[in-house]
Amino acid sequence: MKDLPEMHIPTYDDVLAAHERIAPHIHRTPVLTSSFLNELTGAQLFFKCENFQKAGAFKVRGASNAVFGLSDADAARGVATHSSGNHALSLSYAAGRRGIPCHVVMPRTAPEAKKAAVRGYGGIITECEPSTSSREAVFAEVQARTGAEFVHPYNDPRVIAGQGTCSREFMEQTGGVDIMVAPIGGGGMISGTCLTLSHIAPEVQIIAAEPEQADDAFRSFKAGHIIADDAPETVADGLKVPLKELTWHFVKTHVTDILTASEEEIIDAMKLTWARMKIVMEPSCAVPLATILKNRERFAGKRVGVIITGGNVDLDKLPWFKG
Amino acid sequence: MKDLPEMHIPTYDDVLAAHERIAPHIHRTPVLTSSFLNELTGAQLFFKCENFQKAGAFKVRGASNAVFGLSDADAARGVATHSSGNHALSLSYAAGRRGIPCHVVMPRTAPEAKKAAVRGYGGIITECEPSTSSREAVFAEVQARTGAEFVHPYNDPRVIAGQGTCSREFMEQTGGVDIMVAPIGGGGMISGTCLTLSHIAPEVQIIAAEPEQADDAFRSFKAGHIIADDAPETVADGLKVPLKELTWHFVKTHVTDILTASEEEIIDAMKLTWARMKIVMEPSCAVPLATILKNRERFAGKRVGVIITGGNVDLDKLPWFKG
Repeated sequence: MKDLPEMHIPTYDDVLAAHERIAPHIHRTPVLTSSFLNELTGAQLFFKCENFQKAGAFKVRGASNAVFGLSDADAARGVATHSSGNHALSLSYAAGRRGIPCHVVMPRTAPEAKKAAVRGYGGIITECEPSTSSREAVFAEVQARTGAEFVHPYNDPRVIAGQGTCSREFMEQTGGVDIMVAPIGGGGMISGTCLTLSHIAPEVQIIAAEPEQADDAFRSFKAGHIIADDAPETVADGLKVPLKELTWHFVKTHVTDILTASEEEIIDAMKLTWARMKIVMEPSCAVPLATILKNRERFAGKRVGVIITGGNVDLDKLPWFKG
Repeated sequence: MKDLPEMHIPTYDDVLAAHERIAPHIHRTPVLTSSFLNELTGAQLFFKCENFQKAGAFKVRGASNAVFGLSDADAARGVATHSSGNHALSLSYAAGRRGIPCHVVMPRTAPEAKKAAVRGYGGIITECEPSTSSREAVFAEVQARTGAEFVHPYNDPRVIAGQGTCSREFMEQTGGVDIMVAPIGGGGMISGTCLTLSHIAPEVQIIAAEPEQADDAFRSFKAGHIIADDAPETVADGLKVPLKELTWHFVKTHVTDILTASEEEIIDAMKLTWARMKIVMEPSCAVPLATILKNRERFAGKRVGVIITGGNVDLDKLPWFKG
């Protein structure tokens, strides 16, 4: 872990620059409301629907900021990452928009559907064995061969500044809220949220929502230092990764609280949202609503923002279908 | 079947009056686009998302127009219908908004989930046996006992004028299209579309989309008279009902063509829309896209409106899950 002084901590000016840079490449996603869910929770909920975002997730904000912030010389060598999730799709999408290569290192055992999705956005996949050592070795080889710029899924100031554009739009669209709730995995979205709201609306409480079965951020928050779990299992598969030094900086400085929900509560909230709001969203996006439903008294009577982070779901494997 | 002279054929003035009457009770639903589906079809598609409508379907437009158009004396006796689908939900919702009873006659064999949904919107269910004779007898008894006003799901000028408000909004939101495609079952939505577009944009082609396995409207259109099938089977369960004299009037007068799609094509288009547009919609809503995909040359290069009619899906029974 690097020492703090080495870190470049992005500022709100970086968010503003990011927003101008990425605006032509992303959607200004809608904010939806639901009278049914308002009645159920007693709160006034505002859902920022990044499931409707380009490449299907908020991660295209940070990825686009990284890609379009490169000099022409750096950009020509392309970008690279290791991810089999939304960051890989988003970086591939952004690189495609700039017309540069995007190298993605993925385990050969990753589902074919995920590989096809990355290729569908123009990503170039190099397969590794399903181990950390193989991934690191293969990634180093790809980077050495191509000179591509590494873009980390979340522990990168360019990425965090990009994610910060989401809350900026949200505040313009809603005129403000009392509490903002977003899921926490590696902490990229929550860090961007902290970065923006601490500058433009410091009175807003920021609550991170996490699966009980991958509650490393919750335990880090209580302990005062990063705790990383080895391969936690949760249906909210976007939230399995640990905090890193940059995201930990924002979490410990600006997050009001971290609330957790069980697997069953997450699946129930996911299905309820699909059924009543008629939107397709990932299990990870249901963690905020699950925590709001189980901590009703804390949210009732408040204006509450909820970030729906993505919509890239395997429709053949929905978690409420057993077996 | 009544003779034509007896029918009250609604006019565009009725649509305007309906729109003013129902505006406080419905959503002005968004129009969404998808770069992926535009590329796939070669057309520029505009999806009017009535799956986000109150009570989850466009039918709340017609139902609200009927309910809020009643005199206070008539309204006090309530409204009644026989339906186990979106019309029952919509009429219950509208009656609830006016604070009057809504009586719904449903077969006792209807799924508990559908009964619960109607009750959730305040509808009062009277059960009948699952036969036409029982339904008619029970409905007559309910009407005699309550004096409630019968609101037919589609063969009613108030309902058709209400559905006509959807295309009016759509044209304002998009600035116009070359072709408008909507699914056809009983013909309420397509009749409302014909009523509005023939008045404000008569140059727009109106295409009705129908399941091959319930193609009674297609065959009626070719034959020049109503053909009604007995209990057709299709995954697009909102489209099983036959045309009636009032909807047939609009279909034969204003519809440009009727296109059909197979069950597999409908399910594929449904899953594709969920996967790429991240919206939950009923199988019936996928019939337009299915027909556009299989008649690509007819739509390519055109601005095409598609009405997504509703989002009330049983999430435990998705048609791409076998068994």
